Amino acid sequence: MTAPLSPSGSAPAPGPSDTAVLTVTCPDRGGIVAAVSQFLFNHGANIIHSDQHSSGLAGGTFFMRMEFSLAGLDLALEPLRRAFQSVVAEPFGMEWRLSDAARPGRMALMVSRYDHCLLDLLWRVRRGDLNAEVPLVLSNHEDLRGDAETFGVPFHVIPVTRENKPEAEAEQVRRLREAGADFVVLARYMQILSGDFLREVGCPVINIHHSFLPAFVGANPYRAAFERGVKLIGATSHYVTEDLDAGPIIAQDVIPVTHRETPESLVRLGRDVERQVLARAVKAHADHRVLVEGNKTVVF
Amino acid sequence: MTAPLSPSGSAPAPGPSDTAVLTVTCPDRGGIVAAVSQFLFNHGANIIHSDQHSSGLAGGTFFMRMEFSLAGLDLALEPLRRAFQSVVAEPFGMEWRLSDAARPGRMALMVSRYDHCLLDLLWRVRRGDLNAEVPLVLSNHEDLRGDAETFGVPFHVIPVTRENKPEAEAEQVRRLREAGADFVVLARYMQILSGDFLREVGCPVINIHHSFLPAFVGANPYRAAFERGVKLIGATSHYVTEDLDAGPIIAQDVIPVTHRETPESLVRLGRDVERQVLARAVKAHADHRVLVEGNKTVVF
Amino acid sequence: MTAPLSPSGSAPAPGPSDTAVLTVTCPDRGGIVAAVSQFLFNHGANIIHSDQHSSGLAGGTFFMRMEFSLAGLDLALEPLRRAFQSVVAEPFGMEWRLSDAARPGRMALMVSRYDHCLLDLLWRVRRGDLNAEVPLVLSNHEDLRGDAETFGVPFHVIPVTRENKPEAEAEQVRRLREAGADFVVLARYMQILSGDFLREVGCPVINIHHSFLPAFVGANPYRAAFERGVKLIGATSHYVTEDLDAGPIIAQDVIPVTHRETPESLVRLGRDVERQVLARAVKAHADHRVLVEGNKTVVF
Amino acid sequence: MTAPLSPSGSAPAPGPSDTAVLTVTCPDRGGIVAAVSQFLFNHGANIIHSDQHSSGLAGGTFFMRMEFSLAGLDLALEPLRRAFQSVVAEPFGMEWRLSDAARPGRMALMVSRYDHCLLDLLWRVRRGDLNAEVPLVLSNHEDLRGDAETFGVPFHVIPVTRENKPEAEAEQVRRLREAGADFVVLARYMQILSGDFLREVGCPVINIHHSFLPAFVGANPYRAAFERGVKLIGATSHYVTEDLDAGPIIAQDVIPVTHRETPESLVRLGRDVERQVLARAVKAHADHRVLVEGNKTVVF
Repeated sequence: MTAPLSPSGSAPAPGPSDTAVLTVTCPDRGGIVAAVSQFLFNHGANIIHSDQHSSGLAGGTFFMRMEFSLAGLDLALEPLRRAFQSVVAEPFGMEWRLSDAARPGRMALMVSRYDHCLLDLLWRVRRGDLNAEVPLVLSNHEDLRGDAETFGVPFHVIPVTRENKPEAEAEQVRRLREAGADFVVLARYMQILSGDFLREVGCPVINIHHSFLPAFVGANPYRAAFERGVKLIGATSHYVTEDLDAGPIIAQDVIPVTHRETPESLVRLGRDVERQVLARAVKAHADHRVLVEGNKTVVF
Repeated sequence: MTAPLSPSGSAPAPGPSDTAVLTVTCPDRGGIVAAVSQFLFNHGANIIHSDQHSSGLAGGTFFMRMEFSLAGLDLALEPLRRAFQSVVAEPFGMEWRLSDAARPGRMALMVSRYDHCLLDLLWRVRRGDLNAEVPLVLSNHEDLRGDAETFGVPFHVIPVTRENKPEAEAEQVRRLREAGADFVVLARYMQILSGDFLREVGCPVINIHHSFLPAFVGANPYRAAFERGVKLIGATSHYVTEDLDAGPIIAQDVIPVTHRETPESLVRLGRDVERQVLARAVKAHADHRVLVEGNKTVVF
Repeated sequence: MTAPLSPSGSAPAPGPSDTAVLTVTCPDRGGIVAAVSQFLFNHGANIIHSDQHSSGLAGGTFFMRMEFSLAGLDLALEPLRRAFQSVVAEPFGMEWRLSDAARPGRMALMVSRYDHCLLDLLWRVRRGDLNAEVPLVLSNHEDLRGDAETFGVPFHVIPVTRENKPEAEAEQVRRLREAGADFVVLARYMQILSGDFLREVGCPVINIHHSFLPAFVGANPYRAAFERGVKLIGATSHYVTEDLDAGPIIAQDVIPVTHRETPESLVRLGRDVERQVLARAVKAHADHRVLVEGNKTVVF
Repeated sequence: MTAPLSPSGSAPAPGPSDTAVLTVTCPDRGGIVAAVSQFLFNHGANIIHSDQHSSGLAGGTFFMRMEFSLAGLDLALEPLRRAFQSVVAEPFGMEWRLSDAARPGRMALMVSRYDHCLLDLLWRVRRGDLNAEVPLVLSNHEDLRGDAETFGVPFHVIPVTRENKPEAEAEQVRRLREAGADFVVLARYMQILSGDFLREVGCPVINIHHSFLPAFVGANPYRAAFERGVKLIGATSHYVTEDLDAGPIIAQDVIPVTHRETPESLVRLGRDVERQVLARAVKAHADHRVLVEGNKTVVF
């Protein structure tokens, strides 16, 4: 079996390898920061970064991300997790996650025929810019096999037609699970995923849509942008939900355009903003900076 | 009668006072640039800036803007216009306009209760940054009288209710015509103008909408942006047509926002992008840089 | 005596009036967050926002800003300050400040002849966008008296010449102290302030420089930008130190420019970026978001 | 011999293959546009785009770029050039160039060890986004051989040391000439080129510098940016002259940064802006949009 793509030997490390990230979501009330920071201090963890957010006043939701050093820790991560659950998480009713920053997330990619988002992510992984490794690229077409294999990443084609879609999706899910994917990135994958797929795959799925949502939902956003005569085109990266192009937005950006552009040149210009926005969203996710609340995100 | 607001004595001139601007729209075919530039050269006009655009290949529309010096002209502007019509415009089937850059456009403003766009435009006129003078501010509320009058601009209130809207609009049109408005700017005027108003007023009407259209058409775009969880908010300046927020777009811009913002703070942040985008659109219009084709603009 | 300019009656409040902001700088070591958050929790303060930063690993400096609700506090602010000093600040060797967010800072303005930064700040204060009040505008010229007085702000002229500079600065310091200034903003004040002034005035002084520092230090940056043929022009807001244009930077921004611009049009375009950057820096300072470390800032 | 990298079979064409571009620089006087457009019209050339610029009033320099269709032309390009020289160029004292847009420029790349600019340019050529082909990549290190060869581009290593620099440069020049380079791009080539090299190579050389020039000239700009505490980092692409980092600027851009960044993370963030700015400059050059006047550029 091929090893997943990961930073090449000479690449700089993407971050301190001796840190962990704790993310917390819970009902807002007094004393949360004190309880968490006291717990970490008691176990010898020095907090390096800390961010928090409250979605409102009384009755709102509290979000927190703390990155701390493992250097002086008195426990291994697993017993620390058990202690945190009983001492802090249960009393405050927390949903939480404690991630070892030294263990890169396993990012599976799904693509169709456009190469720009795929190549951009593979370059960033190889360079050590993304705290992720790529165990698998799935596609419904052969076109990008050469690009994936140049990076030493396994490339599997599962053709998708109107008729075979349920079976094809089941096979996709099987491959993604087998690859141990922590999250899936649709790097311009041009098929709509069903609710069944999303439930079965059991991990977050990140998409890049080639417009500044909610403008130009659906197919052909650059043509729609051309016809409306907008002076900006954009891209939006979001978590995929069953509602088309309506999931929680992680990152967006735009670039200025003029009357000189055609639908074709908008496609060309848009590639740059698509790959930048997708890379920004994927990096935030891989660094455990994104928390979801309903249909919105908190990006620390 | 009060003189309209115009650049104060010490303000720098907004441009060479001895230039004129020719704008042309016509069916695209060979020889247009040659014919126009030869005509201008024959009459002693030196071209300073020239822009052109073709909306497509055969069968498309041709757009041009030429700014030229009046210094060596062998005719006054009015006979030059007559000559241009017979020698160039008729053979090519042109819609065209020849504007004396030294004559600022008369820009009437319509406002409701928000001061930021009004103040920004009045300040730019006073500074000499906008080639325009302001003969009148119309409002449906008293709130901004002091601001307008500080700049020495007449301020008239015409209350608008559901019941009196046709009469109120007729009075607005009467005032705007009396003021000799060349164009009207809705600087956060919070009433929808009827098709009758737009036909009667007989000059372009520029609006600022507080979203990146076509996202968030209609009322309360900042609340809608908050609820959708977008990571950018924007503003769009466009010519007003009978279709709400659907007229030709002149300028757009956005600013990044995060999960920390509330609907109220989005309103505050949005003020900066609203006034910048409106000022940019108004300046382009006042400098005769905007040509309209169907529902789109060419901005030279 | 005239009351300082402050938000007009109908203006929205700039922030929750029942919060306080604690800012802390100290040598980095374990337990700081735990100690501070435990202290606040013990006194009934609910933390609303929290930011922290460490300037390095061992031996670095720790920076923190916490905004908390006063609603359930068991002490008034003054006894809370005394308790914090003995319980937390002394053991950790902290420099710290606890500010009542409901008390706007007293921002004195110094100007010369350009109106754009002055007007922009006065508009923002009147609208309630800046948590500040303006007790005084000082100038070395009469030009902007009308603008200041329109907003009801006292305007004093102290002429400055090469000969009288020490006396003029002494008089400026006297006026600023008398006005109770918490900080001074140089809104395009065109004189260099001496080290004596900076020491005597005893509060932070914020400047706006019309270039992206460190490019184009000193006089005439737009002409220098024109001559170098840059494709961006910018503005930088920084704390003033004895080294010209070399103090800690708070905010910077740029706008694109082309070969079409002249030194004069760069000045005009630059006004927009100058006032935006200055407003952003002043707002960050007024909201107690800026901490200084040597010649750099932490802006939370 | 290996064919140079050029758009792959399925790539979209970068522009109409039946157009040509005329660029003109000459002393400004009346009648230039008329003469050129009349000449083109007389020979059946339909003007598609036209841009012009005057660097000043009387005594200034005039710059023009016209793109026209070859479809109805009555002459081949070579006789058209001869006719233009005698009929138009000589009377007006023009420096000019008439380029067949269907013939991509031959772009030689020089690199050292950083892959991001190299990969980005090779990918854009392959996609057909850049009207260029790549006959050669020269390096002073072996590191990027695999990347170049993946794209099918010849890769030659010429080690450069303090001792062998004149000989190494002579060999570089020989290789570049042999490859028929129309222009050279330094895609993070980490050696300073001598005046002898620049004179001998006989074609434009484009560099990417990793700062917003003129700030942070020379080595280690990201460290200098970190130490100055700037809130923006940038990149500048310019033509190389004998004065280090002082040649005519083609494109610049910046991205915002905060106190959280380290010199290392600035390097990582900067890679995105470096490759975008370099690609923009190279595209403008390859499309014959850049005219040089002294130490500045006109970019149409």
